[in-house]
Amino acid sequence: MSEADDFLKVATEAKEAAAVLAPLPRAPKDAALRAIADALVARSAEIVAANAEDVAQARENGTSEAMIDRLSLTPARVEAVAEAVRQVADLPDPVGEVVRGSTLPNGLELRQIRVPLGVVGIIYEGRPNVTVDAAALCLKSGNAVLLRGSSSARSSNTALVRVMKEALAETAVPAGAVQLVPGVTRESAKHLMRARGLVDVLIPRGGASLINSVVEESTVPVIETGVGNCHVYVDADADVEMAVAILINAKTQRPSVCNAAETLLVHADIAEAFLPRALAALAENGVTVHGDARVAAYGEVVPATEEDFFAEYLSLDIAVAVVDSLEDAVAHIKKYGSGHTDAIVTRSQAAARRFVSLVDSAAVAVNASTRFTDGGEFGFGAEIGISTQKLHARGPMGLPELTSTKWVYTGEGHMRTSDGTVVFPATP
Amino acid sequence: MSEADDFLKVATEAKEAAAVLAPLPRAPKDAALRAIADALVARSAEIVAANAEDVAQARENGTSEAMIDRLSLTPARVEAVAEAVRQVADLPDPVGEVVRGSTLPNGLELRQIRVPLGVVGIIYEGRPNVTVDAAALCLKSGNAVLLRGSSSARSSNTALVRVMKEALAETAVPAGAVQLVPGVTRESAKHLMRARGLVDVLIPRGGASLINSVVEESTVPVIETGVGNCHVYVDADADVEMAVAILINAKTQRPSVCNAAETLLVHADIAEAFLPRALAALAENGVTVHGDARVAAYGEVVPATEEDFFAEYLSLDIAVAVVDSLEDAVAHIKKYGSGHTDAIVTRSQAAARRFVSLVDSAAVAVNASTRFTDGGEFGFGAEIGISTQKLHARGPMGLPELTSTKWVYTGEGHMRTSDGTVVFPATP
Repeated sequence: MSEADDFLKVATEAKEAAAVLAPLPRAPKDAALRAIADALVARSAEIVAANAEDVAQARENGTSEAMIDRLSLTPARVEAVAEAVRQVADLPDPVGEVVRGSTLPNGLELRQIRVPLGVVGIIYEGRPNVTVDAAALCLKSGNAVLLRGSSSARSSNTALVRVMKEALAETAVPAGAVQLVPGVTRESAKHLMRARGLVDVLIPRGGASLINSVVEESTVPVIETGVGNCHVYVDADADVEMAVAILINAKTQRPSVCNAAETLLVHADIAEAFLPRALAALAENGVTVHGDARVAAYGEVVPATEEDFFAEYLSLDIAVAVVDSLEDAVAHIKKYGSGHTDAIVTRSQAAARRFVSLVDSAAVAVNASTRFTDGGEFGFGAEIGISTQKLHARGPMGLPELTSTKWVYTGEGHMRTSDGTVVFPATP
Repeated sequence: MSEADDFLKVATEAKEAAAVLAPLPRAPKDAALRAIADALVARSAEIVAANAEDVAQARENGTSEAMIDRLSLTPARVEAVAEAVRQVADLPDPVGEVVRGSTLPNGLELRQIRVPLGVVGIIYEGRPNVTVDAAALCLKSGNAVLLRGSSSARSSNTALVRVMKEALAETAVPAGAVQLVPGVTRESAKHLMRARGLVDVLIPRGGASLINSVVEESTVPVIETGVGNCHVYVDADADVEMAVAILINAKTQRPSVCNAAETLLVHADIAEAFLPRALAALAENGVTVHGDARVAAYGEVVPATEEDFFAEYLSLDIAVAVVDSLEDAVAHIKKYGSGHTDAIVTRSQAAARRFVSLVDSAAVAVNASTRFTDGGEFGFGAEIGISTQKLHARGPMGLPELTSTKWVYTGEGHMRTSDGTVVFPATP
């Protein structure tokens, strides 16, 4: 069989499984998730052995030790992955929630009810734990999942999916609800992107280039995630010490993630009080500053280019500019930002209100680090990604964001006429 | 300038206007809508004269009288269009609604707030009143709108948009927020479909071929609307008289709309009691029955082909099949349906519950006509279309469906550390 045929087979199985899974209530779904968690722990040695093949291949390819650490699974890490699955089982089931409902004036009982999306495709890079996390979130929300991980974790992902499918075989959830997309070539990802009618939504998780290529090429609806060029704007009326503390936290607490700060904007009126301290604190924390000419007046910086202000560094680098007003900061964010998270530090209620109103991003933070834009921090219990688009879901996506809704209306022979509703046995 | 340049100009104007419009509170938006309504009435003669050109052209092209009636504007119809705008002004503003909100355990105040989508593109056919309806709904929800109507209503649409823009010029809403897409060729619609980054969402309103071509060709996110192959399933346990009444209402009350019934499925156990009466009632109401072999046993029918079961007739035709079980009815709907509205007629609570659970459509009706799937009937006050997709919006779309959300979190120097939240002035 060709790769295209292989893909069609697993996608069709997923769609069929989705129809069985969708109407299941919470208990059998939670039981299936616990069976998966138990199987992961019980078969930990098999998973770690498969992972060792990926790690050996990565070493052969000269992969950095940091990347190898991200790739590696140990029994303790498998246990943590299983524990995360149990935590998903403990979360409330979004399916069946009545989102809105009323009895209409004509007596029809109307309800809008959460239902699964159907088949969710996930294209992701790097760490094999995403394979299990994503599958658990999809199953809990009643969706089948097509997983397309990176070729560097192929052996690990194959083992993890095998263990999950075999665990499901003993449960009410069909094993076909979890599928690894066959093939490791770019072409195999394209099958997923073009499977309109078989796949209901595609969620790319990874770097900007992965996400852009999926958005460009997919005919399946895509939820864009995770590209974060996050800004910290220090207003004229900021508490200087608080601003320094928030800046350092947003930039350095975990520089490799999408909610880390990448650009600092400083109001001209506070530049003299703030920038010397900020530049010193950044230097102390090992951050390279790419500053514009006005920033250079306050310390040694690498001259910032246009690209620096567009960059999602994901490293200990930051672009810094001085702006003349809050409006100029907003205009800068609009031009260069990615619509993820932008923060203002200010004591002024008016400035905070204006910044929140004008900045069109998934999240806006006031006197808080950008690092809080996260499903776990928001109390969702788990997160499938952070949407930076405006349709369907925006910001951290938890279980409800993996659902659609269905309208149900119940009457007793309700008919619509040009003069209003007539109810049987009256003739309309 | 080329058509592409013309398009870029109006789309850029719309995007700039959207940024001004988005933060406006309700009062200036409602005032702008009332100014539009007043201007439409005041300049009714000018609008009717422009419409007369379209009507004359349509007659020259041999357009049917029914289509010409749909196209025609009279002073009374312009008044009705203006009244609809005033009704939109009276609706609550979805923007600013706090959808969710809490104080997190660390003290951060978290709110998810409705915000406009930005720039909405509408591609539509037929009646010029859609030009004003769509613009009013977009403005009320804080969005700029790019309108791409049919070439047959070009003169009417040009006049309507001119009147709306001139009315807006006297208000807080920028005139650039309402734009007619230049050009009447297919190419001009394609500019709209490919304006990723300038247009946030595209809503096609019209027949299946229009919608399919937009879905296929657009790189802008699309909300599919309005294709309805709606089913009425008469269960074994139905009240025969109620089933006939609902069938006739769903099929004949307004056959040209997307929530009219196109297929009747009859449980084998009730076929003998139901079908003779149903076929007689359909014949009496001028409906042509396209029946399968089992239906033909109960009366004269046109033999149904596979295409009949896929068809959205929008006419006094109906496809009819006998099925052996509720599950077979569900399988038929899954195979041939469009996911719009499907109804069951039954006295059985278990059958109703099972049908509602298994049918994966935007709306499921129990003992009620499919004709109730409508924003007006659901109490939305107005409707921009009926979504038959699962992402973002499903079923009738009112004002909230024309919005996205933004997360806002407010702290007092909140920083995230590996040990939890630290609040300034403590050092993280």
